[in-house]
Amino acid sequence: MKVTLLDGNVINYEESKSVLEIAQDISISLGKKCIGAVINGKEVVPNGAVIYRDCKLELITDRHPHYETTINYTAKVIVALAIKTLFPEGSLYPENEPFDKLEFYSYFDYPEKFTMEMLKKVENLANDYIKKGLNFEFQGNVMTEEDYIKGMQAIKVDQKYIDDMVEMNKKRYIKFPISSLNGTLYYPRFANLNKTSDLYKIELNEITAFQISENKFIYKIHGLSAVSEKMLLDKKRKIEEIKESDHKYIAKNLEIYHLDPLIGQGLPIWLPNGTILKQEIKKYLVEKEFEYDFIQVETPVIGTSELYKTSGHWDHYREDMFAPMQLPKEEMVLKPMSCPHHISIYKYKQRSYRDLPLRLAEHALQHRYESSGSLTGLERVRAMELTDSHIFVTPEQVKEEFVRCFNLITDVLSTFDIKVDYLSLSLRDPKDKEKYFDDEKMWNHAETELENVLLELNIDYKKMIGEAAFYGPKLDIQARTALGHEITVSTIQLDFLLPQKFDISYINSEGNLDRPIMIHRGLVGTYERFISVLLEQTKGILPLWCTPLQVEIIPVNIENKDYSEKVREQLKSKFIRSKIDLRDERLSYKIRDAQVRKIPYQLVLGEKESQNDTVTYRKYGSEEQITVTLNEFITLIESQIKNK
Amino acid sequence: MKVTLLDGNVINYEESKSVLEIAQDISISLGKKCIGAVINGKEVVPNGAVIYRDCKLELITDRHPHYETTINYTAKVIVALAIKTLFPEGSLYPENEPFDKLEFYSYFDYPEKFTMEMLKKVENLANDYIKKGLNFEFQGNVMTEEDYIKGMQAIKVDQKYIDDMVEMNKKRYIKFPISSLNGTLYYPRFANLNKTSDLYKIELNEITAFQISENKFIYKIHGLSAVSEKMLLDKKRKIEEIKESDHKYIAKNLEIYHLDPLIGQGLPIWLPNGTILKQEIKKYLVEKEFEYDFIQVETPVIGTSELYKTSGHWDHYREDMFAPMQLPKEEMVLKPMSCPHHISIYKYKQRSYRDLPLRLAEHALQHRYESSGSLTGLERVRAMELTDSHIFVTPEQVKEEFVRCFNLITDVLSTFDIKVDYLSLSLRDPKDKEKYFDDEKMWNHAETELENVLLELNIDYKKMIGEAAFYGPKLDIQARTALGHEITVSTIQLDFLLPQKFDISYINSEGNLDRPIMIHRGLVGTYERFISVLLEQTKGILPLWCTPLQVEIIPVNIENKDYSEKVREQLKSKFIRSKIDLRDERLSYKIRDAQVRKIPYQLVLGEKESQNDTVTYRKYGSEEQITVTLNEFITLIESQIKNK
Repeated sequence: MKVTLLDGNVINYEESKSVLEIAQDISISLGKKCIGAVINGKEVVPNGAVIYRDCKLELITDRHPHYETTINYTAKVIVALAIKTLFPEGSLYPENEPFDKLEFYSYFDYPEKFTMEMLKKVENLANDYIKKGLNFEFQGNVMTEEDYIKGMQAIKVDQKYIDDMVEMNKKRYIKFPISSLNGTLYYPRFANLNKTSDLYKIELNEITAFQISENKFIYKIHGLSAVSEKMLLDKKRKIEEIKESDHKYIAKNLEIYHLDPLIGQGLPIWLPNGTILKQEIKKYLVEKEFEYDFIQVETPVIGTSELYKTSGHWDHYREDMFAPMQLPKEEMVLKPMSCPHHISIYKYKQRSYRDLPLRLAEHALQHRYESSGSLTGLERVRAMELTDSHIFVTPEQVKEEFVRCFNLITDVLSTFDIKVDYLSLSLRDPKDKEKYFDDEKMWNHAETELENVLLELNIDYKKMIGEAAFYGPKLDIQARTALGHEITVSTIQLDFLLPQKFDISYINSEGNLDRPIMIHRGLVGTYERFISVLLEQTKGILPLWCTPLQVEIIPVNIENKDYSEKVREQLKSKFIRSKIDLRDERLSYKIRDAQVRKIPYQLVLGEKESQNDTVTYRKYGSEEQITVTLNEFITLIESQIKNK
Repeated sequence: MKVTLLDGNVINYEESKSVLEIAQDISISLGKKCIGAVINGKEVVPNGAVIYRDCKLELITDRHPHYETTINYTAKVIVALAIKTLFPEGSLYPENEPFDKLEFYSYFDYPEKFTMEMLKKVENLANDYIKKGLNFEFQGNVMTEEDYIKGMQAIKVDQKYIDDMVEMNKKRYIKFPISSLNGTLYYPRFANLNKTSDLYKIELNEITAFQISENKFIYKIHGLSAVSEKMLLDKKRKIEEIKESDHKYIAKNLEIYHLDPLIGQGLPIWLPNGTILKQEIKKYLVEKEFEYDFIQVETPVIGTSELYKTSGHWDHYREDMFAPMQLPKEEMVLKPMSCPHHISIYKYKQRSYRDLPLRLAEHALQHRYESSGSLTGLERVRAMELTDSHIFVTPEQVKEEFVRCFNLITDVLSTFDIKVDYLSLSLRDPKDKEKYFDDEKMWNHAETELENVLLELNIDYKKMIGEAAFYGPKLDIQARTALGHEITVSTIQLDFLLPQKFDISYINSEGNLDRPIMIHRGLVGTYERFISVLLEQTKGILPLWCTPLQVEIIPVNIENKDYSEKVREQLKSKFIRSKIDLRDERLSYKIRDAQVRKIPYQLVLGEKESQNDTVTYRKYGSEEQITVTLNEFITLIESQIKNK
């Protein structure tokens, strides 16, 4: 057999060899450093895996991109053994997510509540195993497909997962491998260090619970592992950095939203602070839409399944929709998109060319049934409010309306100082006649118009051939989250198809019926995702106009309470959000605390201020204290709010 | 047998007698005028019905309250015969609604579309029957229960309806009566005139279709009938009057909402004008809530069934809820109320007495599965946005918070000039130990507090003993619709029960846990119902600040278009809603048309205005034309909008 190495060298063997043996053949030092291999560019296996026919082989050492993942996988196996030993009633959950380089996660179910104390026991035993220096032993491909299925069924693994794994194993080089640690067999899904003592330490810091059925919870353990103290400290520092810019942590500190399994997974409940933030942003967006001549509508959050059969969502999008409600006389579903609802408004009366462009905007609640594993804070949710619009235009109006949408979007994004990563123009692949809605003339016209607009506006963009939707070309505005996920903030999409499916028309200037084109416009995507981006990019220091608490009023002592109340009332009458800090704390503590909580303005009100109708304010991030009349302060803050 | 008449007189008979025979016995003229009777105060029967044992008998003549209903029932039978004759494939639908005095309605299903042309054929044949002077013949109680069931099953009537009718017939004096007209048998549900020619005319004017299953529609025919030309004209005039103040007609003219069976029954789609109206009202209410120190939250429109099992809605309210969605890992329902969601926010962290009162407000979308027959415009719908609030208080705070809610409600209702019919204070019946939540002390305290507040505020109210909810006493603010329906506009309800069911608490000033009381507050009920009331009470002449179109700009000729655009832009920058009338019509026509459409301000802009930066305005309902500078006009209208 021929084994081709990463550098192109080929080694010929007469008989099978383990990964480790091959590494040792190459050099003694490589033999010492090797901890596994990647076969044919995709399959990651431990040192013991046996190479028996031609393949490409990439050896894993401490310089390999998989090195940190291997460390984490090693820790995962050790933790699994510790859980099995301590809590045999629980069973490990066969998750299939990609491994992380920073943290590792173990999933398992357990019939009762799993506590932090129990977790600490697991951590202790795992670190005992590390001290003992147990060897990981690769047992070879001793498992047959039949044994594998039986084994998995015995521990009550979901049949779908078993089927997927059997299918995956058919395509593998190493089929149904099996390893052992301390006498316990396991299915190695990755490479691992040679012995437990190659690890320095394992830390288990957090448990989260996922409800998978009425009375069953899956626990997810968050762990850290490293081969040295330095690596552990480095990882901790990185996690701290991410937390500081992860919207989930920022939102928790600011009390933006909370989640409640009794209400449902992936359904954010906006707390008072989050509601202010969301509603202030909405007010601003609605005003901007008024400025750009969009008109607001409000449509139901449900529709009959018939509606979505007509639109095509039922056939192509059903798995992302919530299950239907079976009513005595109809079947209803939560709407995943509002397009059909806006078409109903278009169709409500016969339209003429004089009605076009018809720019319907809705801040529309919609529901998508995302898998529970993919739910992430506000970034990926099941109920979301989209800053949606559908513009009905004649073919001649496409260009002007596209520019209008683009200007509105950039106007709005610049107010929030959102860093755009890049623009992506998705066009069809003209050679692919299957994938795209068949109207050559329409596509040519629309694509040329879109490209010309971008060139005219002198805007950089990435052209994605073959990435257009079935129904038309689109422009996406991409940004990146703190954790590095790429997300679409805004989108403008042309649609030739829905107008046809719903048979909508307008009377043209010659008195004949013509078919309009629809433009789908997402202004800043959903409020949920947009606020997650905003929290991450601002690190929680929100703009004055939309921040929940704008002014903290700190009376010097209890005698200044009346004046403080008066100031609060005056601010309130101008819709400025303020609070009086009446806690029984020292003045200096209150001032420091308001700075820590990043309140934009602190007013310190004492004897002097009460007598002169003045306020002494301090701006967040500044040490300077300025005394002005109450009216001057109100004028100052009002103008800042107005100018955003 | 003894027959007791309405005046108390008793007539003794040895043998059975028909209603008509008894009337003739009393006097010849009564015999001529009698058209039926009410037996024992509730059962309405035709003249032929046979009295065979003791009963109370009320004869129906043209002075009787049932006279007009009898005319309508007579017409209904004639129309039924005409439909059966002309369209035998259709079958009459056994509706069970109370008869109307003004219009009559016939329901039937038909396999194809039923058109106005077909309706006119029915009308013609019905009037032919009138001309022919056919007799209505009462056949007696010839139908047995068994025959009745068989007969109904043969025409495929719903078994539930048959069961209900059999049950009802068991309690009747006249069991399973049967009548005939022109040889066709029917089941008489009311009294009727003696012969078809006693009617003057039948007019059939409207068909509405109700979807009852995917491919089946029930048609509802709206008809008018009368015994004289004068009566017919009177009825038409009354209908016109009602239309003018019926929100459904007003809303249609103003393009407020529309309904689309493909989206779903009872789900109003807010058109652009309706959305402006709704959102302006919401903006005002949210500002008012800010003034009264309520804080806004936003919660999901769905919840798990577990949530509603905990709250008790699942057991007591389920038939009013939409069917649940069966998801792989949970069961979700559209929320019928937001109380459990607000409790989740309360419970999100441990509360202390310092957090109370906690006034959570939400303009919350909720869904209730109203029967399709009861759906009425915006007045009774399946999706509604409630101006909701839940206030969590200590027992000592009940009174103050009740006053706050009451003041907020009266403040808001006075802005809209809503005519309150009366206040209803619902208290428990202290003798009824079953019906009410068991906490004597709490009830006594709360009821006394509520009554004292009303007395202190010097407010008239109706005291309804035994009308309290299971969970606490309440105050309802009642109004009347144009069609005379009594509706609850606003409500304040105390609740001792939900805090217990969800086990919520606060730390009192001594550091111990106490249970808060909840106050449910509906500010103006739902937007849907409130707007229906507002449209009816204003007859569509909405206040300036919330009317969709505030200013109509009418250029004298095309040369003034640029200046008109400038004026529109200036108004838009101040968020004043205006439109330029560029139609190819005469100036006088446009001015008159804007008056007809009740636009609050019309600006006529000509050469003079363009040159001097002025506008010439005319207010709705006034003939006076006033010329001011554009800035003066903006100041004028802004101040009117601000002052509401």
